Amino acid sequence: MRVFGIDCGTEFTGYGVVEVSETTRGQRLNYLCAGAVKLSKKDRTPLRLAQVYSELTALLQHWQPEVVAIEEVFFSANAKSALKLGQVRGVAMLAAANCGLPVAEYAPLSIKSAVVGYGLAAKEQVQFMVARLLELEEAPKPADAADALAIAICHIHHAQTEANLRR
Amino acid sequence: MRVFGIDCGTEFTGYGVVEVSETTRGQRLNYLCAGAVKLSKKDRTPLRLAQVYSELTALLQHWQPEVVAIEEVFFSANAKSALKLGQVRGVAMLAAANCGLPVAEYAPLSIKSAVVGYGLAAKEQVQFMVARLLELEEAPKPADAADALAIAICHIHHAQTEANLRR
Repeated sequence: MRVFGIDCGTEFTGYGVVEVSETTRGQRLNYLCAGAVKLSKKDRTPLRLAQVYSELTALLQHWQPEVVAIEEVFFSANAKSALKLGQVRGVAMLAAANCGLPVAEYAPLSIKSAVVGYGLAAKEQVQFMVARLLELEEAPKPADAADALAIAICHIHHAQTEANLRR
Repeated sequence: MRVFGIDCGTEFTGYGVVEVSETTRGQRLNYLCAGAVKLSKKDRTPLRLAQVYSELTALLQHWQPEVVAIEEVFFSANAKSALKLGQVRGVAMLAAANCGLPVAEYAPLSIKSAVVGYGLAAKEQVQFMVARLLELEEAPKPADAADALAIAICHIHHAQTEANLRR
């Protein structure tokens, strides 16, 4: 199974692709790629959204994942920033839908639990564990890319648990 | 000038197309069409967003406006509804950008002022004046369609004022 994780943001939208393969010693996570779409503050919103959409679409077409995983959003921030984040999130989900891919959403708590084993883990702990789980020398930069990988890993853990329950 | 107004909503996204033509007695507003994309609550969010995007894109390609006008959003509502609205709004702006169209944003106060002459006008007053300005027997239904026409009319008024100032 190949999973495309997306961490939406109004400045950087991170993405990361993780594949899980079966080995004699169980499942193994393979890192495929990670990065972030950087949005220029100079561009007007419609152009920024068009950039996120076209870059994500190109990546989805290139990497051909089976599913897109995205963070559910809860709100400490205000409504204005929620609207701006929603605009990016809408476009990211559209890119997945227009590529015919299902979208799975995970709460931040689930993502941190899946990666660190502790729902209230600090950002640095998530990045450290992402690098460790994917056998990378260091966590991909920017942090949004590592977060996107964490979301993809979370989906793999959930899918695995569900599969085990169905056995 | 032909203007495509969009009134984003998480259930109904209204649209309306208005053209302004020059006559011997000044400018005349012509109603071209109005309606709303109705989103099924049963569908998951990515599918809903894909529906808004594809319907708006088809309408933009059919009506070939020169500009898309959209409401700026201010917030009485909470962050959760702002995020949901943002998702629809992002997809609507993307449809405009991917059709190569500029997007103009107007505050609710400006829209009501342009149509009713009073920024704090009630919804019903806006609908009544939209019908009157466009010489329709009654305001288009649902209300979101009439609101989208109001946004388009607001853009025409602003463009006209700017043109007058430039003379």
